[in-house]
Amino acid sequence: MVSFEPIGVVRNGIEKMSTGNWATVESVIELGPEWVSGLARLAEFSHLVVVFHLHRIPAFDRETQLLRRPRGMEHLDAVGVFAQRTKFRPNPIGVTPVRLVKIDANRLVVTGLDAMDGSPVFDIKPFIPEFDSVGEVRQPSWVSAMVKGYF
Amino acid sequence: MVSFEPIGVVRNGIEKMSTGNWATVESVIELGPEWVSGLARLAEFSHLVVVFHLHRIPAFDRETQLLRRPRGMEHLDAVGVFAQRTKFRPNPIGVTPVRLVKIDANRLVVTGLDAMDGSPVFDIKPFIPEFDSVGEVRQPSWVSAMVKGYF
Repeated sequence: MVSFEPIGVVRNGIEKMSTGNWATVESVIELGPEWVSGLARLAEFSHLVVVFHLHRIPAFDRETQLLRRPRGMEHLDAVGVFAQRTKFRPNPIGVTPVRLVKIDANRLVVTGLDAMDGSPVFDIKPFIPEFDSVGEVRQPSWVSAMVKGYF
Repeated sequence: MVSFEPIGVVRNGIEKMSTGNWATVESVIELGPEWVSGLARLAEFSHLVVVFHLHRIPAFDRETQLLRRPRGMEHLDAVGVFAQRTKFRPNPIGVTPVRLVKIDANRLVVTGLDAMDGSPVFDIKPFIPEFDSVGEVRQPSWVSAMVKGYF
């Protein structure tokens, strides 16, 4: 086991598991005040990568969640959990690029973070295309059903 | 504190901290055999996002690492850790998109994973542009010095 101590928490008032439209959600990431100087020059970036704990997800159930049909494609073959972006994962760690709206001391306002209220945050990284983007991508056609309306 | 149990480990023979050329490095991610069925249909994707533990990194030293000049820009102002991609982070969690070469049972061969040999792996996600890409990005000009030669 590896343990991490969160550096902050997500505040957005979202208490129910939502299935979509995350792009319009504005969240505040409240960092512990001891981390404020680690934000120096972060405002020069338009986007961040937020690494957070999907803290409301129940323990992974290998029997039913390792291989299953994701939402929107119940008519197709089952898909392994590692070929999905479902929140029900062996290690419920969320990784989401978000748009940075503003930084006010220890509070970062962002949009597009698909996290529920109270989610612990482990890390914030600047989104840097040299790290985070890839060239041309191949993905199966069933992905479009899986992601429709999510962001 | 939040604890996670790794699902696998990185094998690539890299024992020294490297500063670059990761794109050419081929790694094998060896998953525990209990996770194999979770890989179903993953081979239909060209790229993955690997979430892993930067396990060789010493404990974070707030005094010297919260705010510092990153490599390649020693002549410029100090930058907060959250505005850098340095491995020396409060929570040393790596998040890297990689190219999937092949899957053989519980072994995934990938290129471009900037992890040292033995790094524990927490999660594997399919790289899906709808999730992982963003539109036009703004980033400061000093980033180019910071990332030069890394991948």
